[in-house]
Amino acid sequence: MISRNSKGEDMKLLEIYAKMKGDINKIETELERVVMDEQPLLSEAALHLLKAGGKRIRPVFVLLGGKFGEYRLDDLKKVAVTLELIHMASLVHDDVIDDAETRRGQLTVKSKWDNRVAMYTGDYIHGQALSQIAQISNPKVHQMLSKALVEMCIGEMEQIRDFFNTEQSVRHYLLRIRRKTALLLAISTQLGGIVAGCSPQHYNALYRYGYNVGMAFQIRDDLLDLYGTEKQIGKPPGSDIRQGNITLPVILALQDITVREPLLAEIKRIHHEGSGADTRAAIEYVRSSAGSQLADELANRYIAKALTILEELPANSARKNLVEIAQFVGKRNY
Amino acid sequence: MISRNSKGEDMKLLEIYAKMKGDINKIETELERVVMDEQPLLSEAALHLLKAGGKRIRPVFVLLGGKFGEYRLDDLKKVAVTLELIHMASLVHDDVIDDAETRRGQLTVKSKWDNRVAMYTGDYIHGQALSQIAQISNPKVHQMLSKALVEMCIGEMEQIRDFFNTEQSVRHYLLRIRRKTALLLAISTQLGGIVAGCSPQHYNALYRYGYNVGMAFQIRDDLLDLYGTEKQIGKPPGSDIRQGNITLPVILALQDITVREPLLAEIKRIHHEGSGADTRAAIEYVRSSAGSQLADELANRYIAKALTILEELPANSARKNLVEIAQFVGKRNY
Repeated sequence: MISRNSKGEDMKLLEIYAKMKGDINKIETELERVVMDEQPLLSEAALHLLKAGGKRIRPVFVLLGGKFGEYRLDDLKKVAVTLELIHMASLVHDDVIDDAETRRGQLTVKSKWDNRVAMYTGDYIHGQALSQIAQISNPKVHQMLSKALVEMCIGEMEQIRDFFNTEQSVRHYLLRIRRKTALLLAISTQLGGIVAGCSPQHYNALYRYGYNVGMAFQIRDDLLDLYGTEKQIGKPPGSDIRQGNITLPVILALQDITVREPLLAEIKRIHHEGSGADTRAAIEYVRSSAGSQLADELANRYIAKALTILEELPANSARKNLVEIAQFVGKRNY
Repeated sequence: MISRNSKGEDMKLLEIYAKMKGDINKIETELERVVMDEQPLLSEAALHLLKAGGKRIRPVFVLLGGKFGEYRLDDLKKVAVTLELIHMASLVHDDVIDDAETRRGQLTVKSKWDNRVAMYTGDYIHGQALSQIAQISNPKVHQMLSKALVEMCIGEMEQIRDFFNTEQSVRHYLLRIRRKTALLLAISTQLGGIVAGCSPQHYNALYRYGYNVGMAFQIRDDLLDLYGTEKQIGKPPGSDIRQGNITLPVILALQDITVREPLLAEIKRIHHEGSGADTRAAIEYVRSSAGSQLADELANRYIAKALTILEELPANSARKNLVEIAQFVGKRNY
């Protein structure tokens, strides 16, 4: 199920996905089947999460990666379901950490039930993801995946450690979102290619494509948190800065001497006031600084890089779709 | 490192482990190596957990299982490290759920740091566990493991759902501890056998041995929470009943009409008063009922079953060790 909010956006994605619609629907059915269990609370919480939607960009990446080899839906489906479930599991845990009430405009598991249910629901969905991938016998798949999982956790932990650290560098931020977001997208396209048996040259290109789109995706997401409406984001704007997550536009704004001092003071105040703090002034400083535009430009550079990498791949309809998705991710939607 | 508390107990275990000392030390070194990372907070939290000790019964089971086939330490070590780390990861998450301050006489990760650090430390250790097992190419190993992981989560969730449910049946309890504890021990001996290439007949026996010892182990652990001293348990006695975890001796005590009504009233009061509640009266009712003895007898039956199953295996020194471990687990230590 594609996300319910920001309909216009989703229409555009649905157009790009159109030719894969049948296979995406099969993955959707499989996702629901896999998380169902005799334990009613786990099933209910997992289904709640599933029904809240999402762009399903990881499954789509897997399917498209598979088109560069011998496309076998049975294998690709297992990889796609695994990666989407791993993503979902990380969201449930993030919502506990972030104390988030809503996501994609729906109540979070931790808010609809409680932190305990959210923690075990995350662990459970993660476990079901592993059950799916266990059916793939290629050891390379397991090695790539487990490495990405460890990196994801390190990225999450770095994010906690860096909360309200206003002195962090752009390099540090990029390393963090690489782990937190880009690696899972990178292995989505790559593992699709690998299970379809495509050449190392091609699956390496698929990896780098996914990685660069992933970097742009996270930078865009961080910008959206400063520019979007609550309806668009599915949660209150300014959530990042409120919880101390200092994102690229803010790091860059802090390097702009015209806003640095008052922005520092605002972040300090938000830190002090906690979860109820008003972030409007801070957001205004970032918006009026050079930071947003620079972040925007960096996202565009990652997209440009992703598009260049695609030229290493054969010009088929899947490549065309990957171009469209990169352009979609690259587009300002705020 | 074997647990620091209850020295007498550990001496006994060390005697049983004596012949494997070299290999156990190698696993210990490997555990430390695997959880170390450039991210200092994760390494520190994971090492803290590792240094707090534990019986390392899962690694020992893996090694002993391996003795029924072609014993190759390199492969066995990966399985052993994986299972111990999975166990450790589940403990970190349990401590968040249980709001536990100490475990094995040491501060828990959630108490020394906070819930967020504990959650990601658990996820991280879990991820590192998967990186280890990813190096084993036998698909059966992955399938057994992922199935056990899912069952573990279901068991944990059942435990939450059943908190303060005084009407649950013995069957329900047994199903829960099967998932929560016994399955991971069952696959410890089994996977040891499988990676050593032993026959299906033998690794099935190893599975059933581990399962029965695991059931007895959890029942003993639940009894210890009612009978042990804080020094022995490494956390305050009565922790189970305080958090609403209704264990076998309590379920059986509730079936004893001489204490049922006052015990129900006590549990209701504890539920109402929350984490600071005095559990001494409730514990006294359980102790004075038929419940403790019946639980004790059931643990013994599982041990007897485990010993019978061992007769299906060749009479080597590993089998002798498995007998000793079963007897050790079966022995009352309170």
